Amino acid sequence: MSTAAPLLLTPGPLTTSARTRQAMLVDWGSWDDRFNQLTASLCEQLLAIINGAATHHCVPLQGSGTFAVEAAIGTLVPRDGKVLVLINGAYGKRLAKICEVLGRPFSTFETAEDQPTTAADVDRLLRADGDISHIALIHCETSTGILNPLPEIAEVVERHGKRLIIDAMSSFGALPIDAQEVPFDALIAASGKCLEGVPGMGFVFARKASLAAAAGNSHSLAMDLFDQHAYRMKTGQWRFTPPTHVVAALHEALLQYHEEGGLPARHARYVANCQALMEEMARLGLRSFLPAAIQAPIIATFHAPKDPRYQFKAFYERVKAKGYILYPGKLTQVETFRVGCIGHVTPTQMREAVAVVGEVLREMEVLEI
Amino acid sequence: MSTAAPLLLTPGPLTTSARTRQAMLVDWGSWDDRFNQLTASLCEQLLAIINGAATHHCVPLQGSGTFAVEAAIGTLVPRDGKVLVLINGAYGKRLAKICEVLGRPFSTFETAEDQPTTAADVDRLLRADGDISHIALIHCETSTGILNPLPEIAEVVERHGKRLIIDAMSSFGALPIDAQEVPFDALIAASGKCLEGVPGMGFVFARKASLAAAAGNSHSLAMDLFDQHAYRMKTGQWRFTPPTHVVAALHEALLQYHEEGGLPARHARYVANCQALMEEMARLGLRSFLPAAIQAPIIATFHAPKDPRYQFKAFYERVKAKGYILYPGKLTQVETFRVGCIGHVTPTQMREAVAVVGEVLREMEVLEI
Ligand SMILES: Cc1ncc(COP(=O)(O)O)c(C=O)c1O
Ligand SMILES: Cc1ncc(COP(=O)(O)O)c(C=O)c1O
Repeated sequence: MSTAAPLLLTPGPLTTSARTRQAMLVDWGSWDDRFNQLTASLCEQLLAIINGAATHHCVPLQGSGTFAVEAAIGTLVPRDGKVLVLINGAYGKRLAKICEVLGRPFSTFETAEDQPTTAADVDRLLRADGDISHIALIHCETSTGILNPLPEIAEVVERHGKRLIIDAMSSFGALPIDAQEVPFDALIAASGKCLEGVPGMGFVFARKASLAAAAGNSHSLAMDLFDQHAYRMKTGQWRFTPPTHVVAALHEALLQYHEEGGLPARHARYVANCQALMEEMARLGLRSFLPAAIQAPIIATFHAPKDPRYQFKAFYERVKAKGYILYPGKLTQVETFRVGCIGHVTPTQMREAVAVVGEVLREMEVLEI
Repeated sequence: MSTAAPLLLTPGPLTTSARTRQAMLVDWGSWDDRFNQLTASLCEQLLAIINGAATHHCVPLQGSGTFAVEAAIGTLVPRDGKVLVLINGAYGKRLAKICEVLGRPFSTFETAEDQPTTAADVDRLLRADGDISHIALIHCETSTGILNPLPEIAEVVERHGKRLIIDAMSSFGALPIDAQEVPFDALIAASGKCLEGVPGMGFVFARKASLAAAAGNSHSLAMDLFDQHAYRMKTGQWRFTPPTHVVAALHEALLQYHEEGGLPARHARYVANCQALMEEMARLGLRSFLPAAIQAPIIATFHAPKDPRYQFKAFYERVKAKGYILYPGKLTQVETFRVGCIGHVTPTQMREAVAVVGEVLREMEVLEI
């Protein structure tokens, strides 16, 4: 089917299974019971992944992941709240930008891109500023692949009686998070990441009590998660036209997620992908940007070769011509490129991809690595 | 492929061609040149449909149609602007709700659901309130299928030196609109309507000068069309992850649109669908809610039978079991149901659908019509 198309080694859109894509071959009526059941089943299964049914609602939202992040902040942070944004990469910066555009008071705490935020940092910051009502954190910062210590930070936030908003876009479904052990007001993810669906919708796990108290907070009609949820509870339907084919694909992707063995199996495969990638890259002499201890098995960042014959664009095109799509770096200070470990790919395919990387670098006569 | 699935006679999501759905069988990298070219080609083709390349930009946006409508208002109406919202149905009301939530000053003018707004109304309203900077209008109000007189209204708005925002969600691509003859600041539509793509993205045709002056207007990061456009001009890419499969499907749907003969052919088929529908329904004794003169060939509203044995839900389920999905009414005062004339369907299929409607009403022993 897509054997001719290159394999995506990117953190979303990523490689999906043929079965997931084939689920898009049917048109669904968005008013129809069968589609409503599809949505309900989707939300139930998503909640189960974080063991959240008792405490949280799952609110699906049209659009990309950023739409869901903005919706969570706009809906759950009252207009007089104050958000502490923890930053160590581009997606953390985006959280701050959202607060700025929405006019929510906020402050930021930024560490280097290879430096996780610590629970001690958060404790100190919360002691220093009593106005802070919410803390916003990126779980796996996809700019580098760095993992921030979510359970420890959540515990400190809870101890201070504050509320946590987690952007788990690139970790949800692959890294374990238990809503009964890690307290949060909102956790945000999307269809086209570790669940291996196609892009086009996000979803927010919102604490029931917080969502119930959020009427009128939102700066936006379309992104009001309170209304979005209330409407579905009343009618079974999405409030505005859902991306029906994307929803059907995600549902089909979830069936395969369970068949594979759920989160533990998905996690194990991504860890194996990441290990295969790291080993083979090291063999080529390409250095990982992050130390292994803080590297999530989601996406890996590599220092670009120093050789002047190396240019990302030419490298990218040659690797693509041989069947693999890589990802550019997202760091401003250091030249890097990235390789995703997520998607419908195996460790064997990762090794094959790195073999191609080696071939291409030799063809480009890149020596200095 | 989907021969077993019922035909959607709904105004979006609607019935798409198998070829359009098959375009979703490939995964695309959102950073890749080939995908950027797909987006660029899409925008170019969309602009050509309204003859807008000289004067307008096409800004695609993730999410449902409402997201694009909200984005257009939020981006193009300055915070101290004032919007006159013309209402004769649910989508007009939604425009007003958007202004309210966004905090844009607005006033409304409402006519009955079977009463088009007239250019004379608009002229009078603009004379009476000099604060109004923008007029927002639904072209085809999908609640009933009523067509508002766009060219006449646009002319009055232009004469007053005011700016027009058109929600052409359900008419774009089927009813002719020439940007060089009908002046507007924004015209909004989406993938899953008359172009017969799948739902998941909208697009806004924004007047170049107005968009250029719109930096900082937006209430939202994700819905900022100024940023969205600027980013694509700079990088060729969507600002946040695009719904890649939806984009590919829309591109494929546009190829078929051109093969069919473009707007004139699409319009002619929908007119024929609508006529077939009206004739056959009249034969059954089912009355159209709107007089023919103001009925757009997009969706038709019918009075529900008066017989107490008629219940929409049972009627809907029986018709669906025989292969067709209808649409509920959206009027609060009168009981109605709706049948879409748009999508990958032919007049013959419309006649077959009405034959089934007749069969079902006989089975339900509904006599009083
Ligand atoms: C951590 C994180 N947050 C937010 C996003 C934004 O998602 P989108 O591009 O779908 O808007 C991404 C996308 O990769 C991400 O990795
Ligand atoms: C005239 C009009 N405006 C807006 C919308 C809203 O679109 P969506 O449901 O995709 O948000 C529709 C949808 O049918 C429509 O017909």
